[in-house]
Amino acid sequence: MKANSIFPLLIVAILPNFLFAQEDTDALFIKEIYEYSLSDSKVHGYLKHLCKEVGPRLSGSAGAAEAVKYTQNTLQQMGSDTVFLVDCMVPHWEQGKGSEVSAILQNEKKMLRSTPLGNSIGTEGIIEAEVIEVNHLDSLEKLGEEKLKGKIVFFNRPMDNALINTGHAYGRAVDQRVYGATKSAQYGARAAIVRSMTTKIDDLPHTGVTIYEGMNKIPAIAISTLDAEWLSEALLTEPTLKLTVKSDARNYNEKPSHSVVAEIRGSEFPDEIILVGGHLDSWDLGEGAHDDGTGCVHSMQVFETLMALDYKPKRTLRCVMFMNEENGLAGGLSYAEYSNEREEHHIAAIESDGGGFTPRGFTCTADEEVFIDQYKKLNALFEPLTSYDLYLKKGGGGADINPLKSQQGLLIGFRVDNQRYFDLHHTAADVFENVNQRELELGAAAMTSLVYLIDKYGL
Amino acid sequence: MKANSIFPLLIVAILPNFLFAQEDTDALFIKEIYEYSLSDSKVHGYLKHLCKEVGPRLSGSAGAAEAVKYTQNTLQQMGSDTVFLVDCMVPHWEQGKGSEVSAILQNEKKMLRSTPLGNSIGTEGIIEAEVIEVNHLDSLEKLGEEKLKGKIVFFNRPMDNALINTGHAYGRAVDQRVYGATKSAQYGARAAIVRSMTTKIDDLPHTGVTIYEGMNKIPAIAISTLDAEWLSEALLTEPTLKLTVKSDARNYNEKPSHSVVAEIRGSEFPDEIILVGGHLDSWDLGEGAHDDGTGCVHSMQVFETLMALDYKPKRTLRCVMFMNEENGLAGGLSYAEYSNEREEHHIAAIESDGGGFTPRGFTCTADEEVFIDQYKKLNALFEPLTSYDLYLKKGGGGADINPLKSQQGLLIGFRVDNQRYFDLHHTAADVFENVNQRELELGAAAMTSLVYLIDKYGL
Repeated sequence: MKANSIFPLLIVAILPNFLFAQEDTDALFIKEIYEYSLSDSKVHGYLKHLCKEVGPRLSGSAGAAEAVKYTQNTLQQMGSDTVFLVDCMVPHWEQGKGSEVSAILQNEKKMLRSTPLGNSIGTEGIIEAEVIEVNHLDSLEKLGEEKLKGKIVFFNRPMDNALINTGHAYGRAVDQRVYGATKSAQYGARAAIVRSMTTKIDDLPHTGVTIYEGMNKIPAIAISTLDAEWLSEALLTEPTLKLTVKSDARNYNEKPSHSVVAEIRGSEFPDEIILVGGHLDSWDLGEGAHDDGTGCVHSMQVFETLMALDYKPKRTLRCVMFMNEENGLAGGLSYAEYSNEREEHHIAAIESDGGGFTPRGFTCTADEEVFIDQYKKLNALFEPLTSYDLYLKKGGGGADINPLKSQQGLLIGFRVDNQRYFDLHHTAADVFENVNQRELELGAAAMTSLVYLIDKYGL
Repeated sequence: MKANSIFPLLIVAILPNFLFAQEDTDALFIKEIYEYSLSDSKVHGYLKHLCKEVGPRLSGSAGAAEAVKYTQNTLQQMGSDTVFLVDCMVPHWEQGKGSEVSAILQNEKKMLRSTPLGNSIGTEGIIEAEVIEVNHLDSLEKLGEEKLKGKIVFFNRPMDNALINTGHAYGRAVDQRVYGATKSAQYGARAAIVRSMTTKIDDLPHTGVTIYEGMNKIPAIAISTLDAEWLSEALLTEPTLKLTVKSDARNYNEKPSHSVVAEIRGSEFPDEIILVGGHLDSWDLGEGAHDDGTGCVHSMQVFETLMALDYKPKRTLRCVMFMNEENGLAGGLSYAEYSNEREEHHIAAIESDGGGFTPRGFTCTADEEVFIDQYKKLNALFEPLTSYDLYLKKGGGGADINPLKSQQGLLIGFRVDNQRYFDLHHTAADVFENVNQRELELGAAAMTSLVYLIDKYGL
């Protein structure tokens, strides 16, 4: 009898008290959130506008300015208590007339499908040079100036197909795109050609940021994976093959820009802020649909849904459209600075920047001192969401919200099924038509549900 | 002290013993399965052949016969111990030159995009009649012969967008397609027009089976959801609007056909069978890619992967390509009959018939007497798969494997993310290009991993 009586006591001791505070009303309200999101929400319409009316919106572009206006107006019109802008200075880069990369093999000229990498300088005329294929940044040091000087360096390490999480595969390959050019320049190379970051073998070039360290600048251009495979084969046959490279890309002076912030003031604990957000800027190819139009409209829809269901938050909710995640993070940094100056406290910040695919769950992180305690609280609250097959795990927050770390709140990354993400990421195919309406709506529902639980019970 | 010492003992008592039998080797082997599936497996090539070389393969068609040959040869060549056919008689229906549905509204003729429903009779000429819109089969009785006689009944209840599981939404709407025609015929209606079964509003007609009860036969035709919405609007303006309907569909005599069965004989418990399967037949539109080419190739890949990794099963593994799931179930029924006659024992049967999307988990069922015990065992084995974010739940098995119920094994349905399934289901868009390679490969990996665990530990 004793054993039997002790067991329940232990369970009670282990489970936090909030669990018992969660009533059936939570399950019912979350069901309402899902039903509304799947049948009446405006999220698909928001995305259509952002993609089709605004279009690509790289920092410093007219599209970016237009995106600020559209989201500011929309968040205002839906009934936010206040909408304001947080200023930042952003880089202004343009690909101009783009790039042309061609090879001559056995007297036949082959054009490779290419795009200048973001922030890259142009070629100022034509570069024609022999090619050296490299799979790792480390290889550059071994090859040295002797082998690299005057050459075009071709970075061709594929993303690892065998990894289930395509984000991890991207993370392990992207150093070539980010640092390939600047590292090659150290050894006198004339240009860097980078295999596109995708597991798919197709003809889409994928852009993305390249970063120069100091004065080591040479043009950086991405080619499609099909063409990267072709070039690698061609180099086996003809190791002295030359590439002709032209790029009109150019950096201009920094420009003033803004993140957009909407707020619903909390009725009981207005000083406890819960943030949802995505980034408003996108690359110059495509329409920035999955990256990160969907994250922006997920976040806007959190507000729209809660208002439509007449939910009055106890805590202050912020919906933030961050500027310049892609090539600088000026929006994320300036927002944190703005917030820290005012001694604000974000108890949780949720970023959606993984695309508008079917939700899988949330990962979270925080300052070490407070993480375990907060994570335990969130874990207890999370119970009703597990019945939607969503997980809660330790893991990353998001690029734009990470600068809020010093406020010791929980930084939460919204995670979606990312198997198709790198088919589209940073390409001309990242358009509205490639976002499934239901998958997008479910994302908004998952984020709204988590915001509701955190708002109701706190962390 | 006592409380502390009792708690671990209770845990030991609660957790089944198999859990402790699962070594790290399981995690390692399952990792190998995933890595192989994502980088070297043949599953995408199998699907390409089935879709592009074989194409649509409705029971009784040349495509179905070709599909039998292709899978039989492939399963043989990959090294199965035996491959054999299980015969069945299947219906033979053809849409012929298809259907034409048009309306005259304000002197303008509008063609509606349509397709004859499977098993439906044709129109034998042209039917022209007024239309009565109905949302529920129940409404027919209320309307009675007075309102329905001589009319075309238009079934227009949409699938419910608010349901998260699109399969459930389908299940709650599909009675219109299956029984709409035969029920309307009872009241003297001349034809049934059915809104396509999808949550999407677009111009694709979705086919699927219609079933006649007794002699109550009138032609049954699906129209796209866009046209269903249009027709419903038009009827508000002009309630006496007439539709002109033509269909060349026709039933022929039953034909002999086959399910394909491949086997790897178990080394220790050859009488315990573990089945994986999908259905080989598909509708006449599209290429039967997600329905159910992916289920077939998932199952073939289970064999290919285990052989490539040199795994020797303890139990007998069967890979079954069922014929005629779509309009009769002759393959599933004859396979169970074949197996029962030989007093075989399937300890588990896993069917993949939900498409080639990202895996979410497995649902299972069994004969009541044995279910709880078996489910508990599987639950304990399942542990390494939860780290792949897969769930195990009570739920349905699969149409083709359900007839094996009397053998008291566990019937397991492989579940994938089904948000996009009904965008394509039974349409001309269910083609190879709409299956994502990585999502398909992950499906094969999930099924292979479960087969491995069940084979190693039994149920």
